[in-house]
Order: sequence, then C-alpha cells, then structure tokens
Amino acid sequence: IVNLSSCFLQGILERLDAGEIVIGDGGFVFALEKRGYVKAGPWTPEATVEHPEAVRQLHREFLRAGSNVLQTFTFYASEDKLENRGNYVAEKISCQKVNEAACDIAREVANEGDALVAGGVSQTPSYLSCKDKTEVKAAFRKQLEVFMKKNVDFLIAEYFEHVEEAVWAVEVLKESGKPVAATMCIGPEGDMHGVSPGQCAVQLVKAGASIVGVNCHFDPETSLETVKLMKEGLQAAKLKAHLMSQPLAFHTPDCGKQGFIDLPEFPFGLEPRIVTRWDIQKYARKAYDLGIRFIGGCCGFEPYHIRAIAEELAPERGFLPEASEKHGSWGDNLSMHTKPWVRARARREYWENLKPASGRPYCPSMSKPDGWGVTKGARELMQQKEATTEQQLKELFQKQKI
Amino acid sequence: IVNLSSCFLQGILERLDAGEIVIGDGGFVFALEKRGYVKAGPWTPEATVEHPEAVRQLHREFLRAGSNVLQTFTFYASEDKLENRGNYVAEKISCQKVNEAACDIAREVANEGDALVAGGVSQTPSYLSCKDKTEVKAAFRKQLEVFMKKNVDFLIAEYFEHVEEAVWAVEVLKESGKPVAATMCIGPEGDMHGVSPGQCAVQLVKAGASIVGVNCHFDPETSLETVKLMKEGLQAAKLKAHLMSQPLAFHTPDCGKQGFIDLPEFPFGLEPRIVTRWDIQKYARKAYDLGIRFIGGCCGFEPYHIRAIAEELAPERGFLPEASEKHGSWGDNLSMHTKPWVRARARREYWENLKPASGRPYCPSMSKPDGWGVTKGARELMQQKEATTEQQLKELFQKQKI
Amino acid sequence: IVNLSSCFLQGILERLDAGEIVIGDGGFVFALEKRGYVKAGPWTPEATVEHPEAVRQLHREFLRAGSNVLQTFTFYASEDKLENRGNYVAEKISCQKVNEAACDIAREVANEGDALVAGGVSQTPSYLSCKDKTEVKAAFRKQLEVFMKKNVDFLIAEYFEHVEEAVWAVEVLKESGKPVAATMCIGPEGDMHGVSPGQCAVQLVKAGASIVGVNCHFDPETSLETVKLMKEGLQAAKLKAHLMSQPLAFHTPDCGKQGFIDLPEFPFGLEPRIVTRWDIQKYARKAYDLGIRFIGGCCGFEPYHIRAIAEELAPERGFLPEASEKHGSWGDNLSMHTKPWVRARARREYWENLKPASGRPYCPSMSKPDGWGVTKGARELMQQKEATTEQQLKELFQKQKI
Amino acid sequence: IVNLSSCFLQGILERLDAGEIVIGDGGFVFALEKRGYVKAGPWTPEATVEHPEAVRQLHREFLRAGSNVLQTFTFYASEDKLENRGNYVAEKISCQKVNEAACDIAREVANEGDALVAGGVSQTPSYLSCKDKTEVKAAFRKQLEVFMKKNVDFLIAEYFEHVEEAVWAVEVLKESGKPVAATMCIGPEGDMHGVSPGQCAVQLVKAGASIVGVNCHFDPETSLETVKLMKEGLQAAKLKAHLMSQPLAFHTPDCGKQGFIDLPEFPFGLEPRIVTRWDIQKYARKAYDLGIRFIGGCCGFEPYHIRAIAEELAPERGFLPEASEKHGSWGDNLSMHTKPWVRARARREYWENLKPASGRPYCPSMSKPDGWGVTKGARELMQQKEATTEQQLKELFQKQKI
Repeated sequence: IVNLSSCFLQGILERLDAGEIVIGDGGFVFALEKRGYVKAGPWTPEATVEHPEAVRQLHREFLRAGSNVLQTFTFYASEDKLENRGNYVAEKISCQKVNEAACDIAREVANEGDALVAGGVSQTPSYLSCKDKTEVKAAFRKQLEVFMKKNVDFLIAEYFEHVEEAVWAVEVLKESGKPVAATMCIGPEGDMHGVSPGQCAVQLVKAGASIVGVNCHFDPETSLETVKLMKEGLQAAKLKAHLMSQPLAFHTPDCGKQGFIDLPEFPFGLEPRIVTRWDIQKYARKAYDLGIRFIGGCCGFEPYHIRAIAEELAPERGFLPEASEKHGSWGDNLSMHTKPWVRARARREYWENLKPASGRPYCPSMSKPDGWGVTKGARELMQQKEATTEQQLKELFQKQKI
Repeated sequence: IVNLSSCFLQGILERLDAGEIVIGDGGFVFALEKRGYVKAGPWTPEATVEHPEAVRQLHREFLRAGSNVLQTFTFYASEDKLENRGNYVAEKISCQKVNEAACDIAREVANEGDALVAGGVSQTPSYLSCKDKTEVKAAFRKQLEVFMKKNVDFLIAEYFEHVEEAVWAVEVLKESGKPVAATMCIGPEGDMHGVSPGQCAVQLVKAGASIVGVNCHFDPETSLETVKLMKEGLQAAKLKAHLMSQPLAFHTPDCGKQGFIDLPEFPFGLEPRIVTRWDIQKYARKAYDLGIRFIGGCCGFEPYHIRAIAEELAPERGFLPEASEKHGSWGDNLSMHTKPWVRARARREYWENLKPASGRPYCPSMSKPDGWGVTKGARELMQQKEATTEQQLKELFQKQKI
Repeated sequence: IVNLSSCFLQGILERLDAGEIVIGDGGFVFALEKRGYVKAGPWTPEATVEHPEAVRQLHREFLRAGSNVLQTFTFYASEDKLENRGNYVAEKISCQKVNEAACDIAREVANEGDALVAGGVSQTPSYLSCKDKTEVKAAFRKQLEVFMKKNVDFLIAEYFEHVEEAVWAVEVLKESGKPVAATMCIGPEGDMHGVSPGQCAVQLVKAGASIVGVNCHFDPETSLETVKLMKEGLQAAKLKAHLMSQPLAFHTPDCGKQGFIDLPEFPFGLEPRIVTRWDIQKYARKAYDLGIRFIGGCCGFEPYHIRAIAEELAPERGFLPEASEKHGSWGDNLSMHTKPWVRARARREYWENLKPASGRPYCPSMSKPDGWGVTKGARELMQQKEATTEQQLKELFQKQKI
Repeated sequence: IVNLSSCFLQGILERLDAGEIVIGDGGFVFALEKRGYVKAGPWTPEATVEHPEAVRQLHREFLRAGSNVLQTFTFYASEDKLENRGNYVAEKISCQKVNEAACDIAREVANEGDALVAGGVSQTPSYLSCKDKTEVKAAFRKQLEVFMKKNVDFLIAEYFEHVEEAVWAVEVLKESGKPVAATMCIGPEGDMHGVSPGQCAVQLVKAGASIVGVNCHFDPETSLETVKLMKEGLQAAKLKAHLMSQPLAFHTPDCGKQGFIDLPEFPFGLEPRIVTRWDIQKYARKAYDLGIRFIGGCCGFEPYHIRAIAEELAPERGFLPEASEKHGSWGDNLSMHTKPWVRARARREYWENLKPASGRPYCPSMSKPDGWGVTKGARELMQQKEATTEQQLKELFQKQKI
C-alpha cells in the first residue's frame, strides 16, 4: 500500500499551522462492539485481522463524514494488553499483525480521500502494574516500530489517565521524528494523581507534543472545560501547542473524576445518554470558539456525529463532507417528507431548541456514579493490585466484597 | 449470483411450521442514515447502486448477529416513490436497477450463512394520492418482477398504514406462488381508517398472507400488544397464520395513533429513546411467550439488538449467533474489565434491573406528539392533497399555517 | 350555635338548580396531618375534640378561599372505625363527641360567610368485613343522628370504593329528607367490583342522590374522565342529577385501579406530585366545560388550590373570593417584586405554559404502583380478612409475606 | 402579655453553650401565602394586624412540631419596605403596629410551651437603593425599638444578600445588649459582592453576632455546604460562634448564585421541588454532624418538616415533640392502615430509600435559572436603579425589554 498522503498532502502540522480546521474520526471500539466485532471488557482491536472489511467500512464512513485523520485501530493493542486478554485473541494473531493490519486498512481508506493516517498508542497494563519506565517505554516502542515500518503520517498518544505515562509515551513517539499529538482521558479535576489539566498540558508539550488535549471519558461540554484549563495552563507557562478534543458522544453531567466508566450504565445501558447531531453542532462551534482546531470524537461518536462537526464548520472551511449529499443542514431534507407536520420540522430553529424526551418515564435523569461507593483507599489498592493476575484480583475482589 | 438457499436450506414456511424461531433483521434506513448513505425525508434506497459495499456490510452484520432472513433493501423503492424524489436519485439510477442491486447484495451475503432472502414492498404514494386499485397494484407488480427474476425466497409486504393497500399488495405478491408475509405499521388502535388490528390480520390472511404482524412505528412493548390483538382476531375468525413482529428500537410510550413519526423528536432527536440490548432481551422473551416465531426489528435496530434476540432465545434454539463470540451473555465479558467496579457488573441481575439515566436533566421523559395539535380533519385534508405536487402542498401548508 | 344558613341562604339544590357554580372545600386529613393534628394510617378526625382551633382555622381558610360548602370533619368517624383505632383515640372521646364537635365548628365558621354545612359519611370497616346491610346502615344512621341534631344543610356520602355500600349510605341519608350528594373514590375503570362509573352513577341517583360524582384517589384530569363517564351513563339511562368532582391535588398518571394509595409514594413521599395553582385553574375550567357545577377538592387540596378554582371561574361567577385580596390573577402581584426578572413573570402566558422542574435529577417521573405486584386474588383475600383483628391480619400478612 | 421565658427558661446562648440542640421554626411568608394571608411579591407581614388568628395558629403548629424559637413575623417589616408596598397595606396599619402585633402573638404562643421569642430584621430597600449607613441603621433601629419594648428574648438579623448590610444590622441589634444571631441568604459562592461565606462569617462575628449561618435561597444540602465554609472561615480566623441553618424546603440543585428566586418556577410553580419529611431527617442529621446546633427552616418549611428535625434528633435530645403523638417515626403509624400493602411501608428502610416519582412525565428535572439570560452588568444596573420609584423601574424595564 502506497502512502498517498506523503506524496500529495500536507502534514498535520502544516495544516494546523496554516489555521486549518482538522476533523478527527469517531469511536471504534463502541461502534464495532455494536456491529459485532469488538468485545466490551477487553475492548481489543483484533478485528483488524479477523474482520478487516468491518474495520475498513467504518473508516470509510468516517472519511465520507468528513474526517481528515484516520486513526489506526490500535487501541489497547500493546503487547502486554493483548496478552492479558489471551483467551480472546487466537494465539496465532500476534500483536504485530494486529497493528500492521490496522495501518494497512487505515492507509487504504485514507487514500480514497483527503486524509492523514495517525498511529495511536494508549495506556498500558504495564504502567498500572507499576512496571518501571524502561519496561513501559518498551511496550510503546514495539508499537512504534510498526508505525514506522508502515510509515504513518503522525502519531497520537491517547487515553491516558496518568500524565506520567503519557509523557513517557510522547517521549517514545518523538524518537520517530514525526509530529506527536497527546490527549488524556481526564476531566477538569485533572489526572488520577491530581495533576491539573493545565499542568498535564505543560508536561506533555515539554515532552515534545505539538498538539495536546483530551479524549474519551467525559461529554463534549465537560471535555471543552478541560481543554480550556489546558489552554490556560499553557498560556501561563508561555508554551505554544495546538489544541485537540475528542470527547464522548454521551451526556455525562453526573459522572465523577473517573468519567463515564463509573456510571452505572457503562457500558451496556448508555443509550439514553447518546448525543444528537445538534448537540454535536453546538460542541463543534464551542470548540472552534475556544481555539481548538483538531476536533473529533471518541466512544459513542458514529459517522453522523462527525458529519455534524463538518457541517457546523462548513462556513469556516468552505465545503461540506461527501456524506452531506445524504443530509440537509438542520433537517432541511425533511421538506420532502410525506407528512406535512414532519415537513414543518425542516428548519434550524426547530432542532436547535428541541429538548428531546427520553420516552423512559420510569428512569431518572441522573445516576450516581458507582465510584461514589468505593472509598479512595480501596480504589487505589485495587489499582495497585492490577498488576497481579486476573485470578488473584478476582479473589481479592470477592474477599473484599467491594 | 447463485441462490444457495434454494438448494440447501428450508424455506420460511417449512421452518415456521416446524416450530423454529426465525430471527429477522434490523432497520436499514435509520442505520444507513447514520452511516451516511440514506437521506432522511425521502428515505429511499439508492445506496444499493451508489454504495453497495455499505449495504453489504450492514447485511453482513445482521447475519453475524443472528438474522435468518435478509430483507432486500427495497424500502420505498416503488417507481412512483423514487420518481417523487427525483432530485435525490440521479436520473441514471432506474427503479429497476435499485431493486435488482438490492436482491444481488442480499443474496450474496445470505450465501455466507444460513439465511433466506425476502423481497419487500411497502406502501406507495399512488395509494395515498387516491390512485385506483389497478394502478397501485401495477406499482407492486413492477417490483415483484424483479424479485421473481432474482428468485428471492419469499416476499414481505411491510409498512402499511392502511389495510386496504396491504391487502392489494398481498394479492399481487401471491401471484408469484411464493410465501407471503404481511406487516402493518399500526398500533393497538388499528389502521388509519380505524380498522382494528384483529380485523387487519383477518383480511391479510384471507388475501393470502401466511405470516402476519406489525413492523415499525411503535416500540417493542406496544407492538406486542398489537400483535396480541391480531392473534385474538385470527382466533375469533378461526384462521391460522404465523405471527411476526419487527418493532422500533425506540421507546415510544407517548406516541399517538400515527406512531413515532408524530413525536417531536422524529427523526433527528430520538437518541434518548434508543432501547438497550436488555430491553430487547425482554422483548424477545415476551414475543416468544406470545407465540410469535418470526421476531426481528425495524428502525433503530442495530446489529447488537438483533444479537440480543438471538442470545435471549439461545436456550430454545440451541445455539448462539456468530457475533456472540464478541459478547458475553448478560455482561459476562465485563469480568475481564480493567476496573474492579466494572467487573462487578458482569452479572444478569445487574443489567436486568438497571434503570438507565438519561444524563439529560433539562429534558422531559415524555413529549406530546405533534399530531395532537393537528385536528383530525386537517390531517385527512392534508393526506388527501398528498397527490398534488410537493410545491402545491407546501403552499397549502404555509397558507394554513398548520 | 345558630344555623344562619337555614335563615338566610339558599340550599344546595336551589343554588345548583339555578345554575350557580358551587365551590367545595379541600382535603382535611392531609392538610391537618402536615399541621400535626391527624395521624396518617388511621386518618381519624378526633382533632375536632382535641384541637378545635386547628380545625376551625382550616375551615376558615377554605371559606376565605371561596368554599361555599364546609364539610364537617367527620371522615372515617363512624363508630366501627373509631373503635378500630382505639389506641389512638382517648377512650373518653366518643364517636358522638367527635361528630358533634365537627358540626359545631363547621357551622361556626360557615356563619362567618356565605357557606353551607354538609354532614359527611364515608365507607366503613363493617362493609369491608362483610357485615350485612342492616349493620352497615346502622353505622351510617348513627352519624346521621348527629347531623340531624345539629341540623346540617345537606349530606354527602363520599369516599366509597364499592357502589353497593354507597347506595346503602344514600338510602340512609335520604331518610333525613335533606338533599344528598354521593361521590365515589373510583377511576374510569369503575368500582372495586368492576361496576362502571356510568352504572355507579345510575344506581346512586336511583337510590336518591341529587348530586353524584367522584372524590379522592385520582388526579384532577383522571377524575374528570370518570365524571364524564358518569354523565354519559346518566344520559343513557335518561336520569338527571347534578355533577360533582373533588379530586386529589396530586398528579397520578401512573396509578392503577385503586388510585394513589397504591403508589409507592403514598402517603409520605407525594410532594413532587403536588399540583400547582395553575394546574387547578385548568382543572376548574375543564370541570366547568364538562357541566360540573359542584367543584372542589380532596386530599392535597390546600386553601390556595380552592382559591384557584374561585379565581378561574370568577368571570362566570362575577366575584373573587376574599383570599384573592392577597393574590393577583396569574401572578399579577409579582409586578411589585424586588427583582426585575421576577417582575417579568407577572403575566398569564408565563405561568400557563411553565413546565415546572422537579429539581430531583435522581428520581423518575413515574413509579409502578405497588398493587401491580399483588395478585388480584391475594388482594381480595386480604380485604375479606380485614374484618378480623389487626393482630390476626398482621400475622397473616407476615406469614404470606405479601 | 407576660414574658414567661424571662422568668423560667434559659436563654438562647445558655442553651447553645450547654450543648443543647435548638430547633428553629419554618417559613411564614410561603405558608401563609398558601393559606391566603400573605401576598407573594411584596411578601409583607401585615397579617399580624389583619388576621392575627392565622399567624397565631401557624406559630402554634411550629411550637407543637418542636420549635424552641418562635421568630416574630416581622419579615420585610421595616418602614421603608412597608411604605414601598403602600397600596397593599391599609394606611391605618403602621409599621409599628405590625411589628408590635407580631411580638405579642409570638409571645402568646411561646408561653404555651418551651420556646423563646426572637425579634427579626431583614434586608432593606434603603440599602439596595444606596442609602448611607446612617439611614439604613435608622431603619433597623426603628424595628429594634419595638423589640425592646416588647422584650423579645434575642434578635436575629436574617435574609441578607450583602454582608455589609448584615454587619450594620448586627451592630444595631447589639446596641440592645441581647444575644444576636445573623444569617445570610447566600450559597457557597458567597454574597452578591463576592465575599466568601467564610469571610462573611468572620465579619458577622466581629460585628457582635454570637450565632451565624444561612437562611433561605438554597436547598438544605447546598445550605449545609455554605455553613461548612463559614465554619472553616471562623476556624481559620480563630473565632468562635454557634452555627445555624434555616434553608428552603425546596430542592434547588439547579440554581445559580441568587438562589431560588432565579428559578423559573419561583414562586408559583415550586411544588415538585418540595422536600419530603425524609429529606429533612437527612438534613437534620447532616447539620448535626457538621456541628450546627440551631437547626430550623425557611420558605417551604411546613410544621411537619420541623417535626422531622425534632424526630431525627430525638435520640440526642431525649424527647419527641408534641405533634409526634400524631406521627410514627419512619412511617410506623402505617402499620394500622386499611390496605395490607400500605402497611408494608411501615418501616424506615422503605422511606429512607424511596426515590419519589414526580408524576410529571412532561416536565424536566432541572430548569435553567432565569438569571442565566441576564448579563451580570444588566443585573447590577437593575439593582442600582432599584432606588428609584417602581414606576420608573417598570418603564426602564419595558424599554430595555430585559
């Protein structure tokens, strides 16, 4: 597979430096879980080898929806993680194969349009089990080797709960000489050790990241608050970097520091929280106004959510994505609906102001995150023990009845 | 493309007569709208020609999820409907091509597994514009010709609001000699002219349908109520037929006679109403207990919803669908999650009893259907006028300020 | 105490026959429970003897709010009921004393304004414990004797779940020669033995009631539906009677046949269901439009709810109640509020359209009535056993773990 | 009227210093508005003269419910306020008469039990219209003269949005030599000029207050947060004072800095927010645990809410209030209910865990405070103009269309 982007297209930094709005893609593990190719719990990406057509189709949908960056489907694809989940991944599927296939598929689809390929690494079991810096970095380096071999356009370190590990990841990725973006899955309260978003951003930029921000764990509104704090931290430290946000497509006003994972509905009862396309248009506008120029999504983002970003920012960008040929702005296409009263909804004002009902009169609007019932001490204990075998942990868990 | 099913597989009636549970597929127009290939408003299936890979992938996901029947993506593909939407469908894409491609794609994927192909027709603009029986039947016959040429396994007349038109459709489809199923998009109040569900079922069976039931417009719970009334109507009339249900995957306790189309959230704000996989398991069990043996879904049903039907009824059927390799029953796979408190959710009791929060504290749980503000008279007037051009209708609409 | 009304005022039938709107009073047991004078559970009215000043003050507030009828506070004051609750009522307080004091207090306050005094009887333990007609009638007759001695203006048989007992009550009350009103605490499904509202009304009128309707157990909207069915039943039977409604001041869209008693929130968690004054204005208007001319309230109705009836119907009646000197129509008095943005609420449109938030994001909007979990058989069994001692019942209850 | 308390009872400081729990009373303006004696908007207490029996009865109910302090009904009874509302208060009712009658009624009822009388002053129009310290203090001094003449037991400066004015009030009240309590109607964000709760508490204690805390404007949970901040402020400043809280009996998780006045439901649509007796028991326990020993309520608190404080803290205090003879702890009295399934609710676990439904499926759980739509600048402008006549303000308001 040839890398078209290296021949014809501008790189990520050239684009951002020129003031372009770069649109990211959406969430793979959640979308493919619903399509039947990813298992919730392990959340590993062996589908790149097992069912490449499904991964390819999802990439293609995001591309059509307006994504300028296709992230390789290498989430949780570090060797230690894949091994951990040994019973799920057939032995013959090596970590390397998964990562290589991910690169090939992303490049194949990127070549169908104007998109860059970004190789991605995320937090590792090694860090959580207190392995030292050398070991953790080795895990990242293993993935990086594939990204270099496959010549991705740039790199993203994403989904980090601890800035320390994120910094290590950035340091490894920078060895490649390629541009590096880094996003953490934190909220306004900062990382799991209490480092503030502003401080996280400062450390990441100092480690070499050209683009910083957040992904996953929180809804668009909360994520923008966090990026705002990062921006202020950078300004205070007189550092420069591009800003990036890839939040959830779920409303999570009621979650605590650990984000949506602690909500009782995670991961199989989140449906009533799914954001609408109109929510995303508001998010895209707010992100733009905040100075963020790399705007995408994470878990829950389907192609139509990405299209909503592209449509909201079409005036600034001067064009609509391909998939908009099947979508009128603000419900415009309803003007052709069979029922006159549905046709009356073909206007921006209607959708912009609609407060959608849940159709669930027996359900509350908020739920208390599980985490609230777990003491901070117990939680830390559990995380430290994470390094031990699953079996040990389960026993520990049962004994403590946590 | 060879029709494997005619060689090896049993037909739909053989299966149902033998007491098998047949699992239908999910909703194409809604799923493909979110993926960027169908336009809400016209809701027409030209994607079969424009983007066959996207249609193929969705069929494949439903097959993996457990569908035994793949419906050709020919919803609203009658000539009069496609012409109506002329500006959306490139001139070169004829009605025949759309229907033929739909048959080919469905067959191609059906051959990958144990599935039948069903050719489908749905209600026509011709009927709504008061064309006579001959003309309406001619429209159905045009589609039927394609289905015969492509040799589908059986036929479904679905999404009819008026039993009169449904009967005409069944009569045409019966000319083929193939088994015919017929579902109406009605609720317990009956069809748009006030014919009760029981009476609708009786008329459809008398017209030749071997399978009757409902599809679309209402949530699973309401749809089962309607099928129950159909069953009782058939029993009272001493008629026999198999029962079928393919409801929405949206909660709609608050909608009126016309179903979810009248909800203010239709079609772009329905997210908080999406049912969970657990809701679907309850639906599948209830449907089974009611004696329904053709159990599937309509708008909103994604592959994971179909998988939930297959998993709930696995004890009765003796096997799980392929996609269950990526899904543990009742959250079982969460036993491998990183966070101990998420692992604690790996049990049936947890998910069965969870009342999911909407995360939307500014939204109500119910909304008044739009239709409530439209008098019955005005509505009928509007429907009668439907025959005239869109332009005239829009003017009429604006004049009346309805 | 002199009965001023018998000297100067017109009787209840003269008023209704002349087309007047008669405003009832609100709910005593709930209001006095919150004020600290009635015990929830027994709900008996010994406060007439123990704390007459509290009963008098509540009567006075209803009178000021516009009530034309003051009901004696004799709810559940039949001898069998008061004896049942022996441990709550000091031995020295006889049934007769309670009833006499109730009459005296009501008359004293009625004399302060333009109000009639109505003596009231309600359903008895004797009936529920299957005592025969003679015994049940004897219980009513005992109360009637007091009402005759104290010369009340007319009589109300209210809060009956079984029309059979209500008919017996009416027959006894008619012996007095005074006008009799009869209301049942039923919903559109009819009485506990399945007699429809229409049939109930017919039987009550045939037994001698001049005014029929419903009280308690259901919200205003549901209660009006029930009265509508009563009206239709009377029309079908070519009978004439005045209509009356005294519903709850709680929203109960989610309750079953037994009404709000089966809601899990009964009686100590009903707060979020309390209706606003604006809800009551809508109720009053609807009741009037339905032809009801005796319009009041039951449990939950506070003086300001009664005032809302009087204010809504002031155009028809030509005057406002005394308490309106402390209330502007539709928030009008807010035009003098300190904060300008509160002053902006001094208009009808604002309050008429407001959908009030619950401020309870962890609570659902509906709850499943408890009764749903109790089989009909078990329920009937329990009601039959009601006759036996409390102790026996508790044992039975514990044994059955119902 | 003789002051029994000065003969037999201990003063407020003796009680608090001895570690006693002192229970305050509930909200007069809201309770009497619903009873028909106070006008929302002006919220002035002329009922002390016009309808003393209604004021007396409410005092008596709070006393029975457990109040140890009866506050004179002198809210907003400063001369400038009463004059402002001239059209509401008959000319013959002077400010002095209102205040004197309030003292007499409170004393009369206090003598019926073990209660102290507290004379109260609240914020003045003079301050809001930028009158100087001398003038504002003169207004307080006028009320103080009545309190001295009537020999109240101690004094409360309550409902202040600006600590500056509260300090002036405390300074005046201290001239009397009587103990002074001071509460502000602020939330955790502090007073309207941005002074933090901790700083407010420090200033009030330095001015002479022996008891400090909050009243009104926020729900119990929020109010306790604010008092906690006050406590921490005092500790940091090494100052000592007793703590006091008298919050709303409405849930207000969604209100801004100005509290419930900015909620769209204020004041006529707050019903669904009313707290239950169980909510109050939780509040009382939390307040106690926080070290607060003067625990009462403000707007929305009815007698049964005060009783809930007394019942929750009965173990610590060693006795129940008089009104508990009509109330079983935690629903205990339901054990005598007619319906067995209601009897099953006669237990603490049931009521403690119940999440009450609103019965309002068309309403949201939260609403955006009005104030959010008013810019801070506009708001300050409006408050500055408050000094001018109502007429001018209305014109200004209409011109600005705010």
